[in-house]
Amino acid sequence: MDGENFSVEAGIKPILCKAAVARKPGEPLVIEEIIVAPPSHHEVRVRIICTSLCHSDVTFWKLKDLPAVFPRILGHEAIGVVESVGEDVDEVVEGDVVIPVFLPDCGDCADCKSKKSNLCSKLPFQLSPWMPRDKTSRFTNLKGEVLYHFLNVSSFSEYTVVDTAHIVKIDPSIPPSKACLLSCGVSTGVGAAWRTANVEAGSTVVIFGLGSIGLAVAEGARISGATKIIGVDVNQEKFEIGEVYCMIYGLMLYSHFHTAKKFGVTDLVNVEECGDTPVINEMTGGGADYCFECVGLVSLMEQAYACCRKGWGKTVILGVEKPESRISLPCVDVVHSGKTLTGALFGGLKAKSDIPILLKRYMDKVNCSFLAYHGLRAGVGQVCDP
Amino acid sequence: MDGENFSVEAGIKPILCKAAVARKPGEPLVIEEIIVAPPSHHEVRVRIICTSLCHSDVTFWKLKDLPAVFPRILGHEAIGVVESVGEDVDEVVEGDVVIPVFLPDCGDCADCKSKKSNLCSKLPFQLSPWMPRDKTSRFTNLKGEVLYHFLNVSSFSEYTVVDTAHIVKIDPSIPPSKACLLSCGVSTGVGAAWRTANVEAGSTVVIFGLGSIGLAVAEGARISGATKIIGVDVNQEKFEIGEVYCMIYGLMLYSHFHTAKKFGVTDLVNVEECGDTPVINEMTGGGADYCFECVGLVSLMEQAYACCRKGWGKTVILGVEKPESRISLPCVDVVHSGKTLTGALFGGLKAKSDIPILLKRYMDKVNCSFLAYHGLRAGVGQVCDP
Repeated sequence: MDGENFSVEAGIKPILCKAAVARKPGEPLVIEEIIVAPPSHHEVRVRIICTSLCHSDVTFWKLKDLPAVFPRILGHEAIGVVESVGEDVDEVVEGDVVIPVFLPDCGDCADCKSKKSNLCSKLPFQLSPWMPRDKTSRFTNLKGEVLYHFLNVSSFSEYTVVDTAHIVKIDPSIPPSKACLLSCGVSTGVGAAWRTANVEAGSTVVIFGLGSIGLAVAEGARISGATKIIGVDVNQEKFEIGEVYCMIYGLMLYSHFHTAKKFGVTDLVNVEECGDTPVINEMTGGGADYCFECVGLVSLMEQAYACCRKGWGKTVILGVEKPESRISLPCVDVVHSGKTLTGALFGGLKAKSDIPILLKRYMDKVNCSFLAYHGLRAGVGQVCDP
Repeated sequence: MDGENFSVEAGIKPILCKAAVARKPGEPLVIEEIIVAPPSHHEVRVRIICTSLCHSDVTFWKLKDLPAVFPRILGHEAIGVVESVGEDVDEVVEGDVVIPVFLPDCGDCADCKSKKSNLCSKLPFQLSPWMPRDKTSRFTNLKGEVLYHFLNVSSFSEYTVVDTAHIVKIDPSIPPSKACLLSCGVSTGVGAAWRTANVEAGSTVVIFGLGSIGLAVAEGARISGATKIIGVDVNQEKFEIGEVYCMIYGLMLYSHFHTAKKFGVTDLVNVEECGDTPVINEMTGGGADYCFECVGLVSLMEQAYACCRKGWGKTVILGVEKPESRISLPCVDVVHSGKTLTGALFGGLKAKSDIPILLKRYMDKVNCSFLAYHGLRAGVGQVCDP
């Protein structure tokens, strides 16, 4: 399955390899032979070892209008090995194991230098189909057709090119199928509890939506010492038997069961019963210290805010709603309650500094089981020989 | 002007004194003789030395419907001397100088014991016309008519009764006309910058509305070391000549000019020019670190949020909108921007611990000129001989 050199010229050559290409909205991905250009300035070419499935891949796979574009190589949760580096790259060398991350971390701008932000100003995150610096693609097929990038990663390919602002070098001894999970979803959830909300020991937490993000929030809250972690979902079975993602891609993906209980959820409430705040109020003694919305529904976002405790309650929005949607809060509550509303991309984590911390916790087995379950993501597929 | 004893019986007696009574919405207050009952459990009777005018007094004076009620003794910014104490009062004794505060601080509940909240759970703040514990009034007139309380203070009277959760004992050497200002407005503004937002040195701050609260926010931001403090207002003259409140009450009120510049405002922007975010973005290099809404208009609240910087921008809502109003934010901004929205009553200050800190700063002349201007409130009126 390994890629072959496409050119025999000296220097870094284009690579011919296979990729799962999204050609039309909602239609099965097509395994095609593609050409991956050499990395340019500040770029590395990565041989993907594992990639997993995030719901954003599904969203953009289904999406018919902009910012969706086709043909495109989706996938943005992965781990890989640096195959070659472009000019001005001193952060990694060939053979380094890296996690690509959709959110940039240039290390130089005011945001990357600040402890308070993870939103790089130099290469601001955009839903662009191009490489971030020169706005071109590194992918073509044998007919010369340009294939678009996705979220600065495009990991549904044996090889991809990623900007150095989007890679994190990691300890190669970490099992790839575990480390891969920190590339997006697990980091987003754990980070939201750990970094964005800064959940404190003894806290009460409510999580709206027990998908992968929500379960990772539960794990982050558990690690942080939360004592009551209430999951709100439409499906009561998630508490015991977990969820199963559909395998919609042609890649070699597999899925596992996992249970909300194992991730730290102490109580489960049906969203129907939680239509108003009294249930959560009663369970938490007046409102939760922290609420997380992990679905992307305005109604749940507003419910999360309402379920937060006066005085210090913090609501963190992680779910992505439709572009034109607005969250609406009673002005009097905002002033009289002292509650806080915020949101985060990538759980507020700074990729290059925070991912290694989480991985070290996992390797040191320090109260950190968030990578213990393969099935936290729908599938961890090996597209290359590990 | 001093009150006279109404009864000659032993123990604490009712007091006959004068008060400015609001009898009908928007009509001039009437100076009447009233009877102030002795303080009950956990209450003190206070001889008012000074009272000043807050816009909330005006709002409730004009308001025709609930929660407005008449006849009522308005006024909630004041300073006074404890004339007598009820049972179970050990916090103060007769002769102590106290500031009454509309927001309770019982000292015992989870909120009062927490550093994170100033919203007492034991005697939760309500717009009630009664004393907070037994829901009765301490005011009647000579015909036996009950007069309603206002915001737990009712300072437009020579004597009033206040719950101990609503008083702060202060150093009697502080000039009453200065200390009085910390009873509501100045504390709300300074506290919002100092406690709620925790403005950091070198920050950029935008203040929507340069009334008393807005100017106090400027002062709080200046004390905290903010380097750019932009005031947004409809009236450009406020920058140089300040504002003048109308004297609508029959009390001996007076007003002073003050200028936004003196309070630390470094730049002034007309709200018309600030209709969109580019002006503020340009002035702050990408958005303000902290935005404060001090008017109570949804449009300004949303504008404040839009003007905040991605990554760490914090918007604090202080202005009170109509009860049914809602603030509406784009969901995508909430998730993608990492900004925070919050609000506060009394600027997030804990009355009993924070007011003494601010007063000490004033007395020690530690970079704290927020009480140097009489005219920060419309008028500081002496209703009793000081």
